[in-house]
Amino acid sequence: MGGSPIDSNKIAYLQQVKQMNMATILRQIWKKEQVSRVELVSSADLTSGTITNLTGELIGHKVIREYEAVSGSVGRKRVMLGFDPGHYRIIGLDIGRNNFEIVLMDLCGRVLRSVGGDVDREAGPEGFFARIMPALTDMRQEAEKAGHPVLGIGVGVPGPIDYSRGALLNPPNFPGWSGFPLQAELEKRTGGRVMIEDNARTSALAERWYGIGRNVDDLVFITMGGGIGGGVISQGEIVRGTNGLCGQVGHMTIVMDGKVCDCGNRGCWEPIGSIPGILGRWGGGGTMDDFKAAVRAGDSHALKCMEDTLAFLETALINVFNLYDPEVVVLGGQLYPYIAEYRATVQERLQARLYAFAKDRLRLEPSSFGASQSAIGGAAMLFRELLSEPVKLLV
Amino acid sequence: MGGSPIDSNKIAYLQQVKQMNMATILRQIWKKEQVSRVELVSSADLTSGTITNLTGELIGHKVIREYEAVSGSVGRKRVMLGFDPGHYRIIGLDIGRNNFEIVLMDLCGRVLRSVGGDVDREAGPEGFFARIMPALTDMRQEAEKAGHPVLGIGVGVPGPIDYSRGALLNPPNFPGWSGFPLQAELEKRTGGRVMIEDNARTSALAERWYGIGRNVDDLVFITMGGGIGGGVISQGEIVRGTNGLCGQVGHMTIVMDGKVCDCGNRGCWEPIGSIPGILGRWGGGGTMDDFKAAVRAGDSHALKCMEDTLAFLETALINVFNLYDPEVVVLGGQLYPYIAEYRATVQERLQARLYAFAKDRLRLEPSSFGASQSAIGGAAMLFRELLSEPVKLLV
Repeated sequence: MGGSPIDSNKIAYLQQVKQMNMATILRQIWKKEQVSRVELVSSADLTSGTITNLTGELIGHKVIREYEAVSGSVGRKRVMLGFDPGHYRIIGLDIGRNNFEIVLMDLCGRVLRSVGGDVDREAGPEGFFARIMPALTDMRQEAEKAGHPVLGIGVGVPGPIDYSRGALLNPPNFPGWSGFPLQAELEKRTGGRVMIEDNARTSALAERWYGIGRNVDDLVFITMGGGIGGGVISQGEIVRGTNGLCGQVGHMTIVMDGKVCDCGNRGCWEPIGSIPGILGRWGGGGTMDDFKAAVRAGDSHALKCMEDTLAFLETALINVFNLYDPEVVVLGGQLYPYIAEYRATVQERLQARLYAFAKDRLRLEPSSFGASQSAIGGAAMLFRELLSEPVKLLV
Repeated sequence: MGGSPIDSNKIAYLQQVKQMNMATILRQIWKKEQVSRVELVSSADLTSGTITNLTGELIGHKVIREYEAVSGSVGRKRVMLGFDPGHYRIIGLDIGRNNFEIVLMDLCGRVLRSVGGDVDREAGPEGFFARIMPALTDMRQEAEKAGHPVLGIGVGVPGPIDYSRGALLNPPNFPGWSGFPLQAELEKRTGGRVMIEDNARTSALAERWYGIGRNVDDLVFITMGGGIGGGVISQGEIVRGTNGLCGQVGHMTIVMDGKVCDCGNRGCWEPIGSIPGILGRWGGGGTMDDFKAAVRAGDSHALKCMEDTLAFLETALINVFNLYDPEVVVLGGQLYPYIAEYRATVQERLQARLYAFAKDRLRLEPSSFGASQSAIGGAAMLFRELLSEPVKLLV
């Protein structure tokens, strides 16, 4: 053997091993929702002594607890381990251009409370904070007063983000937020741990940790609404890319000689496929509900506009499948309810356009959490952190 | 502390730690090409005892060796560690539709010998083996006779690949190879370790380990020739996707209502942007050299065809930047020499189409290894393995 591993700093090293083993245990419990100690010994590849000690410590911390399960026809009772919903809390916050949402979650991924509403996009960060801070402070303080420590606040915001500074870069149509040091500001105002992420990515994280992604390691979440964004999960983790632009599916060229987009590119999907894009092409005035009513009424212009919308969607999605090759593409955002009825049709058409050997595995799914997707994904960031570095978060 | 880490199998555990530490040391040496033991202590975060023991062992194995470097103005001599080119060898093999290439490499990433030539694509695997086995066997035996153990053979082939079986799936225009168990067959014929990979990915791996990627963790390699393929490196590693289709850039839709492609999709880049695609659109008969001569002669139809080729390329590349957000896109393949003179222009045009905050970082580079790219990348697979699991490969 070349050199003992335990030589530079024995305590730090053992702490690291403990963190790794705890993380392994928590991951296994998350994957299976509930698991017995015996199963853990084999699935986590740790000895029963280690399992007993570490699960004991996690129970002491109230991160996990014991559940009683009745198994088999003889009705034998078994002790299972699962996350403890009774102690820790996580707050998720979504900052939208026109609205916000705050959720309070337990460690089982359940939403205990949610508050949302409209905001004035012209009001900038100060107006936004004035609008949300009472609800945010309230939610946090109430939880803590009742003896529930809040692990932190995870925030979804319009990207792109300067991750090194925890600041917004230059989000289009979001006056006053360019360069705003959101993470530091929220940490100052709440006194707690804050993580921020692009809201397409938080939406993907909600799926990864609490939705479809529990059983899927590679997925792309596409959020369609005022804009079109994408969050890419590869091997279980978010991929951000070099400039934080990975997954900018709204800015792939769909119409080769199309119009110049705000991003600088030409013929992007977003300006023709988003809600404003659809309403602009329709030209009928009014809202998506009006447009949908016209489609239902069989108005030929509205029908053509919907057909084009689906053709753009299909083209974008086949590119997503051929470029990322995810197991599932999840569709969400404010636009989705208006096109939900076409999902199966679009999936079939995509299957016909994908490599024959892979087409039967192609999956297109609706998002799991509707309007709360991004806020729940904000909370998921803290949950992921707890599962990766439990010792750090709990000490 | 909850449970000792060294309880299930102490030897296996310590072996794992040793592997991890050796891997860390080899990575650091690879990154910096040459490094002193003192630098290793700080960059690998291991004690000098561990460094001394493990580097000693690696020198004994002739994986690394000492070099003498003269540093500073006083000319003080320092002992540096670098890979040892004098002992181990790796063989890279590229199987093309119309040609092959075999390279013999040392651990410093140098090509010591290369053999290449045409093959008859209609001859199938048997014809292919008849053509290449004498050269492959010869290269291997000569190296071993001279006392140079060959770590293995890394092979680039037309994808897609069934990785679980080490077989080709159903490569278009490659009769006889569908389902062929290439890995097992080559292992049987050579008696050595064999790894196979899609040739766009081996091309990307050549860049990663021996080219631009030594300093870049996120890159996309695009190979353009008879077809168009892509290899995606994210955080230093190849991304294959769920069906092995990640990076199928040749099959993104460029022309929305374009023709049906062999892959099943419509308006793909490959059938209009590959060499056959360009010659087909030109319609002038002859080869790429003839086409290029017509462009040089100012033939208006040829000029228009070249312009369209670049427009397709630009559209595809802006999608690649917006979807993957790599630090560098590398262009290679048999087509590249014919469009090399436009690279700077294309890069400028792409910069004008990318998000303003990121455009100055956009990099479009030519491949480093020309016609040997994929074969060198084949060898890189074994080199990567050596750096990840040195104990496994050396025992």
